[in-house]
Amino acid sequence: MLIKSNFGPEFKEYEVGNIVKLATKEPMILSSGIEISNFNLAYQAYGSLNSDKSNAILICHALTGDQYLANRHPVTGKKGWWDFMVGRGKAIDTDKYFVICSNVIGGCLGSFGPKEQNPNTGKPYNLAFPAITIADMVKAQKLLIDHLEIKELLAVIGGSMGGMQVLEWSVSYPRMVRALIPIATSYRHTTQNIAFNEVGRQAIMADPDWCDGQYLIHGKCPAKGLAVARMAANITYLSDDALHKKFGRNLQDKKNLSYDFQVDFQVESYLRYQGRSFVNRFDANSYLYITKAMDYFDLETGNNGNLSLAFSDTKAKFCIISFSDDWLFPPSESRKLAQALNISAVDVSFMTIDSNAGHDSFLVDNKILQEAIAGFINRL
Amino acid sequence: MLIKSNFGPEFKEYEVGNIVKLATKEPMILSSGIEISNFNLAYQAYGSLNSDKSNAILICHALTGDQYLANRHPVTGKKGWWDFMVGRGKAIDTDKYFVICSNVIGGCLGSFGPKEQNPNTGKPYNLAFPAITIADMVKAQKLLIDHLEIKELLAVIGGSMGGMQVLEWSVSYPRMVRALIPIATSYRHTTQNIAFNEVGRQAIMADPDWCDGQYLIHGKCPAKGLAVARMAANITYLSDDALHKKFGRNLQDKKNLSYDFQVDFQVESYLRYQGRSFVNRFDANSYLYITKAMDYFDLETGNNGNLSLAFSDTKAKFCIISFSDDWLFPPSESRKLAQALNISAVDVSFMTIDSNAGHDSFLVDNKILQEAIAGFINRL
Repeated sequence: MLIKSNFGPEFKEYEVGNIVKLATKEPMILSSGIEISNFNLAYQAYGSLNSDKSNAILICHALTGDQYLANRHPVTGKKGWWDFMVGRGKAIDTDKYFVICSNVIGGCLGSFGPKEQNPNTGKPYNLAFPAITIADMVKAQKLLIDHLEIKELLAVIGGSMGGMQVLEWSVSYPRMVRALIPIATSYRHTTQNIAFNEVGRQAIMADPDWCDGQYLIHGKCPAKGLAVARMAANITYLSDDALHKKFGRNLQDKKNLSYDFQVDFQVESYLRYQGRSFVNRFDANSYLYITKAMDYFDLETGNNGNLSLAFSDTKAKFCIISFSDDWLFPPSESRKLAQALNISAVDVSFMTIDSNAGHDSFLVDNKILQEAIAGFINRL
Repeated sequence: MLIKSNFGPEFKEYEVGNIVKLATKEPMILSSGIEISNFNLAYQAYGSLNSDKSNAILICHALTGDQYLANRHPVTGKKGWWDFMVGRGKAIDTDKYFVICSNVIGGCLGSFGPKEQNPNTGKPYNLAFPAITIADMVKAQKLLIDHLEIKELLAVIGGSMGGMQVLEWSVSYPRMVRALIPIATSYRHTTQNIAFNEVGRQAIMADPDWCDGQYLIHGKCPAKGLAVARMAANITYLSDDALHKKFGRNLQDKKNLSYDFQVDFQVESYLRYQGRSFVNRFDANSYLYITKAMDYFDLETGNNGNLSLAFSDTKAKFCIISFSDDWLFPPSESRKLAQALNISAVDVSFMTIDSNAGHDSFLVDNKILQEAIAGFINRL
């Protein structure tokens, strides 16, 4: 199916693959109380569902990820974000498993999101799009799983915001999943995480081309604000040490300091490039909605400060994975999660992998990560 | 003396105290090779210079600080940024010491900076202002010290970028200072530090009201961009733990999530306030120039990777102070500095103070910090 999009300065059409219409018979109620119905969910599936439908694995993507985890991305042309992990003979072997990944609601690659057309007005929703939460994203995924007539998922796996969805599955549908692998994530967004997200949102909303959220109607794109948001976020995805090893204080294409505001250092060039290229594949309002969903995520406060209560109904096995140099979702957050699961007598294993790519480590080809995931799911 | 300024949306005049004209006989040569002459340096002095002029202490301010360390700020009306440290009977006792603090060149509170008038054009310099370095800031301070006819400083003290100036004094004028106290600083700006500064600069330059740097001429102020820059920087000034203790996930003036893009969390409200209030006291182009000066600072590369060579001529005693939860200028940076000084057989002491205010700890009333500084300078 084709979707029309404004990634970058121009409106273009992209082939986004499978799109299913959900909540067609009865509406889905969002956390905010708003009802949505007949909404689209775009997804990719890899491998084959076996006859007793027992080999389905749902993979949840992160903030700026999408359903293209193991095939070429329709917008960027690059290979999928978990291409090293998912495929024939890989850690998550599509010869054995039926792997599903859907674009979250609020997203911008075919699923119900702020840039989609509001049937009541014939125009994009923009800020009339309802607020969404991690629980809402998972509720939509559950409707997709129902649609595929799968009664039980073998596993739900995801990193960062994907890991939040993994945890939410154990809370919302505690008896529908056999195994959960939350990676580089937490049971709540920390104060510092909220703070960084707020900077990103303010950068977008400060851009006059954001047009109070109505940029699509005006044929504009808040490219500069979105790029700044991405640049700030990008620093948090890598550790200080990783940035140092990657770029140090090396100059970019010059031998001496410029003494002006052109690029001096490689790290400046890298960040500017990250900002520019992000704008060509992501929608600014989606960024606002999804960061808010992350900020709202908190399984502790919702359970009167007792995190272990969140997991009292789950029957799933957990494998929690964190990375040593991840300072955005540090191992200490995963440790608290493991403790809470232990208190709830849940079957849980917890590992911290030595890493040097910071939070982004789950997106980087890593043998230990692959072996951990393969080992865990193959023994289910 | 009055200066005219555009802090916030309006142009107003402020009394900035002492301004001295420097480089009146021969020009001062900047690191870039550009010569400047007849430039202003604004400063404050506290206490009295003794007859043999041996009790002078120079205090160097940080990125967004200024010369108002111990008296009411002319723009904000708040008390000085080191009011708890400097004054009669305080750690740096103005009954004993003659304390000098000057606004750095590139700054915006009376010293030669991008918002000052270019005598050749009758307009503000804006981006025609020359690039400056930490060494240039120190060179201008040295001219001020010469002007005050002080042959030797008892001590040079400063935190963060102020600490960089302290270190530069030991390199540029190694025999003019008896003691140096670099606090919460480093001998170079790290890759991550450069990255955060670059985000701030891009946020300012993305604001159309920046007008390619010519906003003063157009009667505008890139308030939104400058606010975003400040918000991002502000996160780095506090530790994750400090933010958590201060704000947690507490909601701001509400009991339930808003499900929109208004302020939900206290930390969002705090950051927005920090952004707004900063714009009312700081010049955007100054922010660009001064962050670049910090990024350029690197005593290691300049000495072929051998940091200890930087200090081979100094005769000063060092007292290096870092803070345990400072992740912007972490104790590990100070440790490397102490090692290099030891290799150069410099008299150096090094302490890491247990803190809970992150990088900002040097700006927070702290008994151990006061005792450390008082003890060190009183024994000189």
